Amino acid sequence: MKEKASFGDKVRLSYNGAEIEGTFISHESGIITVKLKNGYNVALSDDRAEYLSVTRVKRLSEDRNGEREISGGVILLATGGTIASRVDYATGAVKPHYDISSLLGEADIREKLGTKVIDNILSENVTPEKWILMAEHTKKELDKGNHVIILHGTDTMTYSASALSFMFEKQSRSIIFTGSQRSPDRPSSDAFENIRSAITFSSLNVGEVSICMHDSRSDLSERLIRATRSRKMHTSRRDAIRDIDGGGLAGIRNGKVSILGEFRPAADETVLSAKLDNRVALVYFYPGMESGILSRIAEKKKALVVMGTGLGHVSEAIISEIRGIARDGVHVVMTSQCLQGNVNLNIYSTGRKLKDAGVISAGDILPEVAFTKAMYVLANHGENFGETMMKSLRGEISARLLN
Amino acid sequence: MKEKASFGDKVRLSYNGAEIEGTFISHESGIITVKLKNGYNVALSDDRAEYLSVTRVKRLSEDRNGEREISGGVILLATGGTIASRVDYATGAVKPHYDISSLLGEADIREKLGTKVIDNILSENVTPEKWILMAEHTKKELDKGNHVIILHGTDTMTYSASALSFMFEKQSRSIIFTGSQRSPDRPSSDAFENIRSAITFSSLNVGEVSICMHDSRSDLSERLIRATRSRKMHTSRRDAIRDIDGGGLAGIRNGKVSILGEFRPAADETVLSAKLDNRVALVYFYPGMESGILSRIAEKKKALVVMGTGLGHVSEAIISEIRGIARDGVHVVMTSQCLQGNVNLNIYSTGRKLKDAGVISAGDILPEVAFTKAMYVLANHGENFGETMMKSLRGEISARLLN
Repeated sequence: MKEKASFGDKVRLSYNGAEIEGTFISHESGIITVKLKNGYNVALSDDRAEYLSVTRVKRLSEDRNGEREISGGVILLATGGTIASRVDYATGAVKPHYDISSLLGEADIREKLGTKVIDNILSENVTPEKWILMAEHTKKELDKGNHVIILHGTDTMTYSASALSFMFEKQSRSIIFTGSQRSPDRPSSDAFENIRSAITFSSLNVGEVSICMHDSRSDLSERLIRATRSRKMHTSRRDAIRDIDGGGLAGIRNGKVSILGEFRPAADETVLSAKLDNRVALVYFYPGMESGILSRIAEKKKALVVMGTGLGHVSEAIISEIRGIARDGVHVVMTSQCLQGNVNLNIYSTGRKLKDAGVISAGDILPEVAFTKAMYVLANHGENFGETMMKSLRGEISARLLN
Repeated sequence: MKEKASFGDKVRLSYNGAEIEGTFISHESGIITVKLKNGYNVALSDDRAEYLSVTRVKRLSEDRNGEREISGGVILLATGGTIASRVDYATGAVKPHYDISSLLGEADIREKLGTKVIDNILSENVTPEKWILMAEHTKKELDKGNHVIILHGTDTMTYSASALSFMFEKQSRSIIFTGSQRSPDRPSSDAFENIRSAITFSSLNVGEVSICMHDSRSDLSERLIRATRSRKMHTSRRDAIRDIDGGGLAGIRNGKVSILGEFRPAADETVLSAKLDNRVALVYFYPGMESGILSRIAEKKKALVVMGTGLGHVSEAIISEIRGIARDGVHVVMTSQCLQGNVNLNIYSTGRKLKDAGVISAGDILPEVAFTKAMYVLANHGENFGETMMKSLRGEISARLLN
């Protein structure tokens, strides 16, 4: 049976006497995959399926990327990642593929949507320079009255989203990152639902950079979480990106939206400080770490974010080294490899020595968020680095835990 | 009111007309703290309390550490940590204090117990050399027919316990690590219950190195977990040390023991290979990490354990650097900063390039466990490093996830 539909087309098929209607995803190795309206995909054996009708998706523009400008609506800014990839069935590998218009199967939703491809990378290749570009593109769209949904690889989504959190001191519309853990052509893809829910969440006008991803392993449940409290906690599950505190801003379950937590509403204006100082390194302490390594990492850096043990500890040898590094003018920020709970340098002798050596701690800030925050603070509040790191700027520190 | 009891003494007090019986913990700032038989502590205002009787704890020996030899019983090997500390109420700091005999208030339990102080450090100062010493002390005690309970700081407990897991190829009795998140003189201390439950668990004769800590924030619930699947996931909570899979080997709730998972039973003999090669570093990848850092860390190393993003990814720049490092004979093991789920280098182009560069992955092994395993494998199976890293030796890899 010849392929009669293209990715994204609406199709009706007869299958074993039943009628099936949905969005065509793929036809590979004898299997036709169709996304049903309820969000689930079905895999049909092609020798028992017959097309009743195929409604071609009207591509959004003639642009090779399927881009479309918009104002006063919602714009999808694509940066790459799995959500912009398709499986190469010959090799099993996932490869980049960008026709953004095919990501949504429903014309009525698309009417309000604009699309723009600003990059096409796997997110492990993102850099601070790219965060600045993302922020500048986002600013332009906010100024046109658009909500912005940034399509991004999940690997470093929480780093990028937190970097934009700090750079956007005020935002007039929603800025939501989304992506997928399975490429859009796979039956189990979470791409469609994540985008659809991000579009729904955008109307809440949350004035904080946030992330929308699956809330459970099954479909029909997404959560909007604060970028600065998020972390990827599983390599492959569709609900991998979590609010570290288990909370969130809003949820969608079976199409119903509920507000889960407090958030800042969108502001009247957008204020972007698109400056980051990338001279920051993130270092994981481990038992027996020898002196010398930290100094080698600190060369040409302005700040080190250390992931210590427990409440924020390192060995005696490393304390001595940190003392020297701090004396040389490199800021040292202590976080915890535990990820949850407060860093506290007041309880044990080790913490007191670290504090005495000039180490800065910032409550329960996540290590990766401290890393992007340090870049923002160096570039924008360098003269008050320690003080600014210890203050919660974008909800990155739970106030009740600050010490 | 003068202090009439010492830490660990059995006391009966009259308080507001009621009679209270338990173990004396402390008398500070007008507050008498007594540990009740049900595991909870009460704080009594000393102006309303009157001692009815004080039964002095018979110290276990005249040795300054309260040490006592034993055979055919249970031995507590103390290495330091919070469980060996007391609060200095003048400063609020926690300081080392070692009278091991005072850790247990009940003579009937103590009868079967031996105690030995082998070290007194905060656990962030532990080193591979100390893991070898711990293993050798443990071996001696197993050979006397003792179950071994190692009292250890919680910060690096999972590193130490996994290192011993690999070194003990066979064990004839239980080897259980325990500790506390609150020092034993604090009303909320978890030290007593953790030790008591570890003693109970030791009779299960589990033939794997394991960890016994609180299973919830409240008392009366402990869990025994496999050392190689454990991680400290909170800086301060009493249930901070978790099985990363959410499972465990056995549990105690309100005094009742239940078996939660499969484990290897104790063997007929003990086989210890007390050799580790400490030329291993653990490195956290972050966006924008510049070339050069990894090579500087790899100097004089035999293996690098990298914490990549997602399924085990790093940027293009770092792939090139890894290729060179691997070519120079340094083993590179990829793990994930997600912590949960499988590393898989077959899905994305980044993973395939890493595999091509010689990078080794080992399913869902935890980064810290890969770090101690690499030390063991280098010293004992150096000629088959990659192959041995990819095999589950002590339950550190979930077999179903191996690729």
